[in-house]
Amino acid sequence: MMNKTAPIGVFDSGIGGLSVLKQLIRFLPYENYVYLGDTARVPYGNKSNTTVKQYATDCASFLLSKKVKLIVVACNTVSAVALQSVKDIAVDVPVIGMIEPAAAAALHSTNNGRIGVIGTRATIASNSYKNAIIGLAPDNAVQVYSQECPLFVPLVEEGMMQHPASHIIAEEYLSLLISQKVDTLVLGCTHYPLLSPLIRDIMPNTSQIDSGEHSAVAALRLLADNQSLADERKEFLLKHNIEFYVTDYPSHFHAMSQNFLGFEIDTPQLVELTNE
Amino acid sequence: MMNKTAPIGVFDSGIGGLSVLKQLIRFLPYENYVYLGDTARVPYGNKSNTTVKQYATDCASFLLSKKVKLIVVACNTVSAVALQSVKDIAVDVPVIGMIEPAAAAALHSTNNGRIGVIGTRATIASNSYKNAIIGLAPDNAVQVYSQECPLFVPLVEEGMMQHPASHIIAEEYLSLLISQKVDTLVLGCTHYPLLSPLIRDIMPNTSQIDSGEHSAVAALRLLADNQSLADERKEFLLKHNIEFYVTDYPSHFHAMSQNFLGFEIDTPQLVELTNE
Repeated sequence: MMNKTAPIGVFDSGIGGLSVLKQLIRFLPYENYVYLGDTARVPYGNKSNTTVKQYATDCASFLLSKKVKLIVVACNTVSAVALQSVKDIAVDVPVIGMIEPAAAAALHSTNNGRIGVIGTRATIASNSYKNAIIGLAPDNAVQVYSQECPLFVPLVEEGMMQHPASHIIAEEYLSLLISQKVDTLVLGCTHYPLLSPLIRDIMPNTSQIDSGEHSAVAALRLLADNQSLADERKEFLLKHNIEFYVTDYPSHFHAMSQNFLGFEIDTPQLVELTNE
Repeated sequence: MMNKTAPIGVFDSGIGGLSVLKQLIRFLPYENYVYLGDTARVPYGNKSNTTVKQYATDCASFLLSKKVKLIVVACNTVSAVALQSVKDIAVDVPVIGMIEPAAAAALHSTNNGRIGVIGTRATIASNSYKNAIIGLAPDNAVQVYSQECPLFVPLVEEGMMQHPASHIIAEEYLSLLISQKVDTLVLGCTHYPLLSPLIRDIMPNTSQIDSGEHSAVAALRLLADNQSLADERKEFLLKHNIEFYVTDYPSHFHAMSQNFLGFEIDTPQLVELTNE
């Protein structure tokens, strides 16, 4: 059985996964966390599946060495192309990815059966969201329209969430989904929740699905089912217990963590990952 | 002494260095080339100096194993922060970076003594161009104004060289340099020559310095001085002799190589780099 006091392990190619950690803390405030960002090899989104699988298992091995009770793959690209590779090495620890919880939420949200998905090139090319949504739906009940948005990550990392250039680019990326009259849009990348207000300006009547939020709810349910939730500790409501690790010190890390997480974090510890 | 028939080694974090290879072929059409793109760890521009030095020496070691007669560091970021690390391991092989040749060309080009430099965040933060230009100039003869342009690389990689959003972003990035009345602008990143027409629209009276072009001229001069130029072989004017290596297969590689190099190349060979 799981150890209630063991930490939840969270990893991402970089710091985008902090938007997922933010949601985990919201639903699971009494837990200990270990967060790993593979900032020496970021981004994963334009690399081959073979390379992403190798990097993902390197990250998961590190978290397993920290005796985590659950691994949250806080990266849509890894969830799309390498979730099984992570599960294969995490034999005694459950693994939650980004895709399945958001796919279920999108199906629950739609009224007209027309769902849009946006993500990195690798996530969209994998068809993981489309397959997951269609796999959950009754025959022909939904149509899924996918759109890659490769510039959204660099725009967010430059803090240009409300910039006129970002607006022009977002209008282009979203034009197909608007013409297809989707009523639900999956934000299939951990950076995209920061663009939620911009997307709402362009698609005001579309429900947005934050993949991090729904994965956090899935984590809550899984730990509750296993009677492995940490006990309530009031002091955690004021000060979180998070160990942060990175493989390289990224530039303007503190400003970025503030944007993604909502609060500044201490300088993370540097680790070197070893190949499996 | 150098072996005339040995290849010239060229490396970059990814495929941007192909714009430098294009210039090398222009000035040195009869040479054999080995090109390495470290596409599994691209980009270097937002990583720490320690990590960039490690990656750069990994790349240089690979080229040395191919018995190259010259190493061209076809990456401004590596040239700015890790050129000495490459020289330290390439004890018997000369090394040419991007910075010094372009700095000399900028000084030669300016009439009003006001020079602009654009580059990635890491290149600009290093002050390498500024220090190189001022180091070559008589006392107080020039003013150097630097501007980081972090979105130019992703915009080029998306093929948006003439897009309205790119125009808005470029106008913002270049506004300080325009107000400082620079008459010469160093394109301090291998991706930026592809934005040359866009930049000319915004700064029509400014001379652009292509760092790859001037490094290629420096390579020609160095090989001539050492009597190590390859003999003229007419067949090379029709078919170049280039070995291409990458550490990961990048997405839409062929379209990108066409953009950077001017012709499509064969599928590169995959190599794994070993740490020094």
